[in-house]
Amino acid sequence: MSGSVIIAGLGPGASQWITPEVAAALDQATDLIGYAPYVARVPLRAGVERHGSDNRVEIDRAQHALRLATEGRRVVVVSSGDPGVFAMAAAVFEAVDHGDPAWRELDIKVLPGISAMFAAAARVGAPLGHDFCAINLSDNLKPWPLVEQRLHLAAQAGFVIALYNPLSKARPWQLGRALELLRCELPGTVPVIFASAVGDAREAIDIVRLSDADPQRADMRTLLLIGSVHSRLIEREGGAPFVYTPRSIGATA
Amino acid sequence: MSGSVIIAGLGPGASQWITPEVAAALDQATDLIGYAPYVARVPLRAGVERHGSDNRVEIDRAQHALRLATEGRRVVVVSSGDPGVFAMAAAVFEAVDHGDPAWRELDIKVLPGISAMFAAAARVGAPLGHDFCAINLSDNLKPWPLVEQRLHLAAQAGFVIALYNPLSKARPWQLGRALELLRCELPGTVPVIFASAVGDAREAIDIVRLSDADPQRADMRTLLLIGSVHSRLIEREGGAPFVYTPRSIGATA
Repeated sequence: MSGSVIIAGLGPGASQWITPEVAAALDQATDLIGYAPYVARVPLRAGVERHGSDNRVEIDRAQHALRLATEGRRVVVVSSGDPGVFAMAAAVFEAVDHGDPAWRELDIKVLPGISAMFAAAARVGAPLGHDFCAINLSDNLKPWPLVEQRLHLAAQAGFVIALYNPLSKARPWQLGRALELLRCELPGTVPVIFASAVGDAREAIDIVRLSDADPQRADMRTLLLIGSVHSRLIEREGGAPFVYTPRSIGATA
Repeated sequence: MSGSVIIAGLGPGASQWITPEVAAALDQATDLIGYAPYVARVPLRAGVERHGSDNRVEIDRAQHALRLATEGRRVVVVSSGDPGVFAMAAAVFEAVDHGDPAWRELDIKVLPGISAMFAAAARVGAPLGHDFCAINLSDNLKPWPLVEQRLHLAAQAGFVIALYNPLSKARPWQLGRALELLRCELPGTVPVIFASAVGDAREAIDIVRLSDADPQRADMRTLLLIGSVHSRLIEREGGAPFVYTPRSIGATA
């Protein structure tokens, strides 16, 4: 039996977002690898080895998966959200690129998942209805001036901006600085969505104005969506407003 | 019984990408609304009215859904991919914003789906592993100079770029112009992925260099992913290369 590595997206939080394709892969796995809280989201099954690991050891985890596959195991690497978005898929291919040449010939597949940004957007309406970008705010993996430059260019381009990894204990000031920068580029009325723990019991979503956005509102499980100047709120008597970004800009046919 | 509108993402093409949440909504629907080929992807069920419509009548379709909901129907508006990405969710909220005030109090929900960009990325590796953006190349809904400006800023920012709606009979030259512009900004070696009909029987994926990217390769069902200068190919004896964009840039901790 030849081994394989499948990098599978569980979606954010809720099992109702696990696709049939991913469920089938989990059913066939001999080994599950991933950040321990994500591995814990997969129901127990006899005969499956579970290798939960700490956060921020992505390359170790990827190499472990590849080694197990060369031994003939059917390994599933689990990610929250979509595995291709600031998650394990890139880490596995980095390990392949710089590792044992035999790893290149392994059966490696990525199975897409519901991404956190689209799940968060769905909760409030359609804030990503026009052109958008996704920026990882962590400066663990790139220099902070590059993050600032990208924020600046993204705002200039009129993109709605999804900010991943806005804050951690080791990165306490970056989100505040990012919001300051965006306030220089965009009107204070632009809607900002703080979406935390989307899809699980602790889900909390707040819609505020950019001028009022408090970086302390975010934690490690928060994703931010920063509207463009064209994003709109639809106020409702019955509850939270809808937020959407119209598909059209300007007077063209 | 009070009516509702659910805007649901079927994912691109394959039923293995329909989430349990969307499947449950389809099971409860009294009415399905959408572009006819997407409605046709939902299995027939007794007691469900199917309202397939032509392309490019999104607002009519949205208003139809909202009117049916006010009559107490449980309407599901189906989109391919994720409904929040250049699809029906924004159209429904535009209709709410500018329509009958009573529509604001309706039960309206968006259910996320597997997006075409992440499904396409998964097929080749992890090209969206770093910061990225999504641009709708159609100038039906925005002026062409704005599209060019966004391409320019996105390339400057170093984003991997997903291009939606690159080409149609009515828009034959836009993709060629976009590729020309990108060739002025980026090295010719940057990988470009043409992903057509992802998830269905006619799926076709090609990986080329930006210098060789031929706009004639695209059609209405094609999505392009334009790598950044950091995107890499992993050549394999066994088949097509993997494409990924490393998580890290520059020499930081």
